[in-house]
Amino acid sequence: MRASDIIIKKRDGFELTKEEIEYMVLGYTNDLIPDYQMSAFLMAVYFKGMTDAETANLTKAMLYSGDILDLSSIDGIKVDKHSTGGVGDKTTLVVGPIVASLGIKVAKMSGRGLGHTGGTIDKLESIPGYNVNLSEEEFINQVKEIGIAIIGASKSLAPADKKMYALRDVTGTVDSIPLIASSIMSKKLAAGTDIIVLDVKVGSGAFMKTIEDAKKLARLMVDVGKSLNKKVIAMLTNMNDPLGYAVGNNLEVIEAINTLNGNGPKDFTDLCINASAELILASGYANSLDEAINLAKRQIDNKEALNKLAELVKAQYGDESYIYDPNKFAKTPFIIPIISYETGYIHSIDALTIGNASMKLGAGREKLSDKVNHRVGIVLNKKTGEYVTKGETLAYIHSINKDNDEVINMVTSSFIIEASEFKQELILDVIK
Amino acid sequence: MRASDIIIKKRDGFELTKEEIEYMVLGYTNDLIPDYQMSAFLMAVYFKGMTDAETANLTKAMLYSGDILDLSSIDGIKVDKHSTGGVGDKTTLVVGPIVASLGIKVAKMSGRGLGHTGGTIDKLESIPGYNVNLSEEEFINQVKEIGIAIIGASKSLAPADKKMYALRDVTGTVDSIPLIASSIMSKKLAAGTDIIVLDVKVGSGAFMKTIEDAKKLARLMVDVGKSLNKKVIAMLTNMNDPLGYAVGNNLEVIEAINTLNGNGPKDFTDLCINASAELILASGYANSLDEAINLAKRQIDNKEALNKLAELVKAQYGDESYIYDPNKFAKTPFIIPIISYETGYIHSIDALTIGNASMKLGAGREKLSDKVNHRVGIVLNKKTGEYVTKGETLAYIHSINKDNDEVINMVTSSFIIEASEFKQELILDVIK
Repeated sequence: MRASDIIIKKRDGFELTKEEIEYMVLGYTNDLIPDYQMSAFLMAVYFKGMTDAETANLTKAMLYSGDILDLSSIDGIKVDKHSTGGVGDKTTLVVGPIVASLGIKVAKMSGRGLGHTGGTIDKLESIPGYNVNLSEEEFINQVKEIGIAIIGASKSLAPADKKMYALRDVTGTVDSIPLIASSIMSKKLAAGTDIIVLDVKVGSGAFMKTIEDAKKLARLMVDVGKSLNKKVIAMLTNMNDPLGYAVGNNLEVIEAINTLNGNGPKDFTDLCINASAELILASGYANSLDEAINLAKRQIDNKEALNKLAELVKAQYGDESYIYDPNKFAKTPFIIPIISYETGYIHSIDALTIGNASMKLGAGREKLSDKVNHRVGIVLNKKTGEYVTKGETLAYIHSINKDNDEVINMVTSSFIIEASEFKQELILDVIK
Repeated sequence: MRASDIIIKKRDGFELTKEEIEYMVLGYTNDLIPDYQMSAFLMAVYFKGMTDAETANLTKAMLYSGDILDLSSIDGIKVDKHSTGGVGDKTTLVVGPIVASLGIKVAKMSGRGLGHTGGTIDKLESIPGYNVNLSEEEFINQVKEIGIAIIGASKSLAPADKKMYALRDVTGTVDSIPLIASSIMSKKLAAGTDIIVLDVKVGSGAFMKTIEDAKKLARLMVDVGKSLNKKVIAMLTNMNDPLGYAVGNNLEVIEAINTLNGNGPKDFTDLCINASAELILASGYANSLDEAINLAKRQIDNKEALNKLAELVKAQYGDESYIYDPNKFAKTPFIIPIISYETGYIHSIDALTIGNASMKLGAGREKLSDKVNHRVGIVLNKKTGEYVTKGETLAYIHSINKDNDEVINMVTSSFIIEASEFKQELILDVIK
């Protein structure tokens, strides 16, 4: 077998065998196939796509490129949650505590933000002391003891994905549905849980710009999971607008805390309740989705989910007093209101632009080696569908700089205000 | 400017600017852009193609990546000839001497064979003593003195092409018309002659499998030449069959000598006369193609072209006695006849199969680092269109091994014999 022949076979649109895909993935992971052949291969996949069988084989080859976490010593149902990446997406910080407070085991490895999208790990690190670097043993023990742990991704899981993702990022081969599906699923399957809920974002701030592409991606990931005897539930949710009001690291933690106190933004609360309910139902803790939704709401009302978040933070060496008094979080010296020049209904708040504006403030990274600032970000004051009058505040910029002209322009331009009323759905579909 | 943005722009089908193309080519040549980005870029070009303007800019960027040979100290018209690569293509060894014997200056840098195609440099090296490694100064002086020099390609010309071609070879990005056009033309333009005749091969043994693709390639190369004030003439010629009878290094030199003695195969002689005539006409040595054809024939009849070949060989330290007595060339211990199992008209002798069989015998290279054997090869005994009866000899294998089963099967299977008569054209079109 030769890498160049496999590249040409894919380039010419033929279906690759399991062995050919394994040869490429394992050869690349073990430095036997050079970067330049893998990048040409990935570009050929970008153009020619992959059959469902190829995508499943690619996922499995990436999965078996490293260790698979053995969670069998943890009693009960182990669940995981993954978002394909959005703006203002702090869902894990709410869903994890809700379901863990019911006794479902949440064993989650999470990533850092890149580009316009944020990462759960960066958000958690805005809580003083929070340690995202537990060993696998510590991780498993914590799940056993308190039912939840959220740490950074282990290097030993799906190393092929890490190497391939870094290459895709610089070779124009990120936006490929089979490559996205195999990247996500190889990581998630390697993390060893029984049930995975996937939040597939759709819209301007997401990798998937159309509902058709998002459905294709969701269906692929659900099927790959099934073929390995895992329950996978994919929710398709709107990412034309940022999720909730807050975008930025500690700003989003504060919003998650508010939500666990019952004071969250409507869209974000709805998404968290529904995602929790899907996990509750799939775990057998409820007999219907309605029952599961009510259980999730109850865990907010009775503050058990909030207490679970505090327990998580404390277990990972964070200062849990911040959870009960979010005013303690550090603030920026400048909080600048963004004023509306128009009167009308908000039709859109472009998530990509808001994500990029937040990155420019320092909340996100252009490169993985960049450092993030935990305090900066953007807090919306109005959401899509709301009526605003000229002169009203649309949003606030939290900045450490005095000069914010570029970011102000970006945030202002992200609001599309029209005369007509406008409504949009948050949850577009659920595939399982 | 960032390489990843340029890759994505091409991937998404947008036209690249001159500056973007230069950024990629010069960045890559100077090791500022890594192999893996260039290979992804080349694969995107494979799928999305290039506009004529992009191809011209790519060619120029590759041309200006290194030196351009200054032939201005040589009086008169300087010409070059290039074949896109075929099987049994020893045309340069006949065309060069014909036109040089008329006073047209032939300054040719040539390549080595790779895969199923042979290279002029390998063929010349089968003449004992022939030195293909002259300095640029020696090369220019020899053209001044005897009107012809044929040497290996200089490293300082079009270094971008050398680096990009090596990468294309292992990343499935060879078969792209704009990449082939820019590769050929950057090298040829860097070699500094006034007139270039291109022999664009079409058929199973060529890069271009269809006449449509060959025309597109020819038109692109002629136009790029024009945009740099060079006369470029592209002949489209049949490469479904090997050219002439002989395939292999010294076997082809012998056939070239026979042709210069007026005893060449009809197809090969026709091609050489016509290619010479195009150069003679373009150089102003004749007023019509017919007149040019007659001049070319005359230089064979009066042996002036043969004497010019001997002069060339002598000037480059080769033993010119071989030119006058080709029986001196070393022979293989085994010469095995290939017998026809059928009776009928030959409809095809698959050039790709014959080329690969010849490579297996040792006449060609799988990798550039392989050594070639100058004696081995295949000599056809029949050509397409001829009538054969069962038991007649189709070809001879010249081998240094006793066991040739695989090669015998390849050569036998390359002959397609049918009941019906069959004729084909050699010269399919001329674009200038």
